[in-house]
Amino acid sequence: MAVRAIDTPLLLCTMVVVLTGLVSPSTAGLSLDTVRDFLTREEDTIVFSLIERAKYPLNRPAYDPLHSAAGRRLNASFVELFIRESEAVQSKAGRYQSLQEIPFFAYRVPSALAPPYNFTSDLYPAAASVNVNDAIWSMYFDELLPRLAKNGDDGNYAVAADADLACLQVLSRRINYGRYVAEVKFRGDQQTYTSLIQAKDRDALVKLLTSEAQEDVVKRRVEKKAAVFGQSVTLDGPVQTDANSQANSSLFKVDPSVVYELYGQRVIPLTKQVEVEYLLHRLD
Amino acid sequence: MAVRAIDTPLLLCTMVVVLTGLVSPSTAGLSLDTVRDFLTREEDTIVFSLIERAKYPLNRPAYDPLHSAAGRRLNASFVELFIRESEAVQSKAGRYQSLQEIPFFAYRVPSALAPPYNFTSDLYPAAASVNVNDAIWSMYFDELLPRLAKNGDDGNYAVAADADLACLQVLSRRINYGRYVAEVKFRGDQQTYTSLIQAKDRDALVKLLTSEAQEDVVKRRVEKKAAVFGQSVTLDGPVQTDANSQANSSLFKVDPSVVYELYGQRVIPLTKQVEVEYLLHRLD
Repeated sequence: MAVRAIDTPLLLCTMVVVLTGLVSPSTAGLSLDTVRDFLTREEDTIVFSLIERAKYPLNRPAYDPLHSAAGRRLNASFVELFIRESEAVQSKAGRYQSLQEIPFFAYRVPSALAPPYNFTSDLYPAAASVNVNDAIWSMYFDELLPRLAKNGDDGNYAVAADADLACLQVLSRRINYGRYVAEVKFRGDQQTYTSLIQAKDRDALVKLLTSEAQEDVVKRRVEKKAAVFGQSVTLDGPVQTDANSQANSSLFKVDPSVVYELYGQRVIPLTKQVEVEYLLHRLD
Repeated sequence: MAVRAIDTPLLLCTMVVVLTGLVSPSTAGLSLDTVRDFLTREEDTIVFSLIERAKYPLNRPAYDPLHSAAGRRLNASFVELFIRESEAVQSKAGRYQSLQEIPFFAYRVPSALAPPYNFTSDLYPAAASVNVNDAIWSMYFDELLPRLAKNGDDGNYAVAADADLACLQVLSRRINYGRYVAEVKFRGDQQTYTSLIQAKDRDALVKLLTSEAQEDVVKRRVEKKAAVFGQSVTLDGPVQTDANSQANSSLFKVDPSVVYELYGQRVIPLTKQVEVEYLLHRLD
């Protein structure tokens, strides 16, 4: 499938996460089961968010700095400006006090709005800020969005940008959750991981973290979810359960094969990248 | 089903919509088919948004003005402050230049961020600002949210509030779309509607706008969508297609009967209220 290019924002995403008040990793709460349940539930959120972005056309002016006065002045697309302002509000509202959430841009905004909450962390502090948000940003705008949204312009730039932000946020949370996956695996076999980390043996770490059979299950399950959640449900008609049962995949709001490939080529490899980077800082 | 009470924000929602640059209703684009397609597609968005809010516990401190310093100072809950600030960003981003979108609070923010777009309107200018956002706000926080979210507090206030805003926005867009429904029906039988409008005969208008058979189809379809979209899809397991086929409705992320009742008791009646109010201003 052809991938159309979109002008992406030139500004580099700043990846600094402020880790104030980080406590030592707690030993309760995190297990292989809770990690697996979290990742499985995020699949639904990812599929929903992709379907919702596909509701709107591409709306190309929203992605081109030249199309608004503010964009030309700031050399940033409308979508980038929208995401910066929205993340600033969410930062003020305390969203990033939870380490599960990582912004695409760094903010120096105190969490003034939010009621206080005592977050504990399951992550090792020196490795907790590992993330691949810059790769997720490029992947989303350069590769994924052109496969989701049809050509066209309905002027609903703010609504479409809000849908972009929802996609980016859940992809970021899901992929950067690799930190939690790595932490659980590390705790489960501390001896093996410690020697590979000390040897900085990336290849062996990747191999140890990989289960092709499990990855295949995940890819086929998200493809099925795209079919189940992205069909037009009618009161009396049958419910499609098989992404491949229809010759015409255009009956789905998002082509299930796009979600299969998103996971196979991006979500799973990027998650493993996060896992490896996290582990390489796990003994710092 | 018991409905738990939540403290709702005391501030009244301001319902003023700035209708600058409104053009006369266009005659193209709006038809019974496009209106029906729009409403059917919004059902999916509503069900997705409810499922996503149900992912987080109730997070009660977010709804109580006493739980944050900012809340006590401004006599508003965290969620209300979050929605005000988020809507202000979206207003700046031009969201409300489209008449399909109506904010819960009024803003005097110019749409400085957005690329220009020439919106045309299908609505009659003097009736276009009709909406029931205040009723939607109360209904959501007082009745619906307590049936969606389990008791508990995970501190993810900003994420939960963002999910609240998504629910409110799509419910507002769907219900206030009654303006478009009314416009299409008015154009289809101008003579009958004109005499009822001139007589200010609300009851006859409601009767003319009501199709119990069609409402029954909608209610049962959204219930089915809640089952199809809210189940745990597994790779090899069967896909549930019947909201009532399982003795235990807790297997769904949102109880399908809640969505059935939401439509029957709130969405459909409030839409009709919008339709009637719109029509009563249709000859102004």
